[in-house]
Amino acid sequence: MTSPVYGRVAPERRRTSGARAPEQSGRDLSAEAAPEPGIARIAVDLLGGDHAPAVVVDGALRASQADPALQLLLVGPVEAADALLAALDPEARHRVGTITAPAGPGEHDVSRVESGVRTAILAVAQGHADAVVSAGNTGATVTSAALGLGRWPGVRRPPLAAVLPTAAGRLVLLDVGSSVDPDELTLAMHARLGAAYASIVHEVAAPRVGLLTIGTERGKGDRLRRTAPAVLAGLQLPAGARYVGLVEGNDVVTGAKADVVVTDGFTGNVLLKGLETAYALIRPPNDGDVPPRAAILLGVGGTVVVCHGAATGEDVAAGIALAADLHRRAAVPVIADLIQSQVPAHEDPRGGS
Amino acid sequence: MTSPVYGRVAPERRRTSGARAPEQSGRDLSAEAAPEPGIARIAVDLLGGDHAPAVVVDGALRASQADPALQLLLVGPVEAADALLAALDPEARHRVGTITAPAGPGEHDVSRVESGVRTAILAVAQGHADAVVSAGNTGATVTSAALGLGRWPGVRRPPLAAVLPTAAGRLVLLDVGSSVDPDELTLAMHARLGAAYASIVHEVAAPRVGLLTIGTERGKGDRLRRTAPAVLAGLQLPAGARYVGLVEGNDVVTGAKADVVVTDGFTGNVLLKGLETAYALIRPPNDGDVPPRAAILLGVGGTVVVCHGAATGEDVAAGIALAADLHRRAAVPVIADLIQSQVPAHEDPRGGS
Repeated sequence: MTSPVYGRVAPERRRTSGARAPEQSGRDLSAEAAPEPGIARIAVDLLGGDHAPAVVVDGALRASQADPALQLLLVGPVEAADALLAALDPEARHRVGTITAPAGPGEHDVSRVESGVRTAILAVAQGHADAVVSAGNTGATVTSAALGLGRWPGVRRPPLAAVLPTAAGRLVLLDVGSSVDPDELTLAMHARLGAAYASIVHEVAAPRVGLLTIGTERGKGDRLRRTAPAVLAGLQLPAGARYVGLVEGNDVVTGAKADVVVTDGFTGNVLLKGLETAYALIRPPNDGDVPPRAAILLGVGGTVVVCHGAATGEDVAAGIALAADLHRRAAVPVIADLIQSQVPAHEDPRGGS
Repeated sequence: MTSPVYGRVAPERRRTSGARAPEQSGRDLSAEAAPEPGIARIAVDLLGGDHAPAVVVDGALRASQADPALQLLLVGPVEAADALLAALDPEARHRVGTITAPAGPGEHDVSRVESGVRTAILAVAQGHADAVVSAGNTGATVTSAALGLGRWPGVRRPPLAAVLPTAAGRLVLLDVGSSVDPDELTLAMHARLGAAYASIVHEVAAPRVGLLTIGTERGKGDRLRRTAPAVLAGLQLPAGARYVGLVEGNDVVTGAKADVVVTDGFTGNVLLKGLETAYALIRPPNDGDVPPRAAILLGVGGTVVVCHGAATGEDVAAGIALAADLHRRAAVPVIADLIQSQVPAHEDPRGGS
């Protein structure tokens, strides 16, 4: 991977952005806890997604109109950002800054597309934004975030956590696409991260954590699912969470057995896309509480929200609102404290330092 | 695994069963093509399933009442069968036989439970029944069927194929629980079997076969999904089927890209249970055409239908009706002919003999 060349902030907009939140420049993520509702500065990757930049611009417009305390930093081609700015009233326009992602060799070159998310993440790392939202390539986002924001101790591969509606409330499913061939120690860290998320963001007391498999009889499951239960059963989980054992695909729909479901990123992604599409086509199991169709990257030193490549403008807007909410709750630093204050038990010593 | 001890047919009922279909005793499966609608003799495993035998008896009763050309051979404890017989009118009672599965050391002993499906499969192998229906342990059913009925040439692990409703029609998903750690050659055989099934049973002209993965960008998917596409792309598929490349979880719901979706049994099982539960809780994507919630074992020398462990009486009845339909269409021998008449191309030479 070549080093990213970071773009410039358009001067006339840099002033706007800088004038609004100068105290947050170069801040320490672990020390920030903005009042709720407070200003949330979200860097939005205009280059990521199947229908970028049009759908992303649409989503940013919707998000900006819905939340007057939102400041957007649009990352990508200036001409796409200009379309958004032209649609906003003067007050709202002052809440939008732009930053140009460096151009690669060609319009459809992967490195050109990925430069959007890399630049957006650098904006967070340098204190110009509080969170990143991208609908771009998941692998590029995870890698850029790990490099640009740093991984927490013990996190080998930061997981993507999705939130699904169930008949019994919100359920955290992770990983949904970051770790496709994890081992049991990676699943164990994901269990801890998911439990902390459910506790802090969903305010679930003593979250129940289950391991996704295909049957509870002896010998069921593949290699990973035969070795992982012993590791998970011996794990110390944060926030009073407890490991409740094996769960199946149906439990991800009912929510009856677990608040957090841990699996590999391949199975999680397939199940997520299946269920989300079913819910979109028919309706969700709980009309009154439909979580955003966006995933949260956990285990890195900043707030990163990933939308589907096929996200609609509404999905992008929901992803931006989620990123703002996570920032206002100081969710990422609080989860980091929960995870890092725990004494790891029965874990890989490589993970502890 | 100890050798199964096969049960006796209760003498007074053997007579009934024998009098009705003497011409089918000891028949050659490949030569049978019963007229439709014709008599279908289904061996039902009373011992398999989370709520056996009550739910199975209930399902058998429903199936028997719905289909006057159905002959049931109930395999398991005679006392459970007696409850069913008492509920039937005298005409219907003549269409039900029983066979006692040998008792193991105890009521809840695994070998006792598995003796039901082993005995039912032997009944098919010996010509006493045309098809088997079990809601018991999948692994035991697959192993018993492979041993008792034989695998077709080239089939290393017979897959379980499920049929899902989609917005665009019925979709075959396989494997859903038999092969949890398959290699790409196993997936290739499953692609052929699924294509033949869609052609013969769903009457799809030139079925589209897709490989389930998590994204179509370069480098997406786990190890298996990075090597399998090349094997599938070079495969000769039966019934004019064609490999259409990578599909994702959403495509299993919409049906827009493929009629047959191939995956490992772990991912397939998780997705199936998730979608089936979502459809049961909300509604299916296509109310007018809801396939039975049962899977078909392909690649063995007989008709075997597997219901969920958590199947309801309605599900068991639908599984029995599916087994009868498959028998009446001579689906299994016709699929066998399609598969076996093909010259394997680009395939493992071990698979050809």
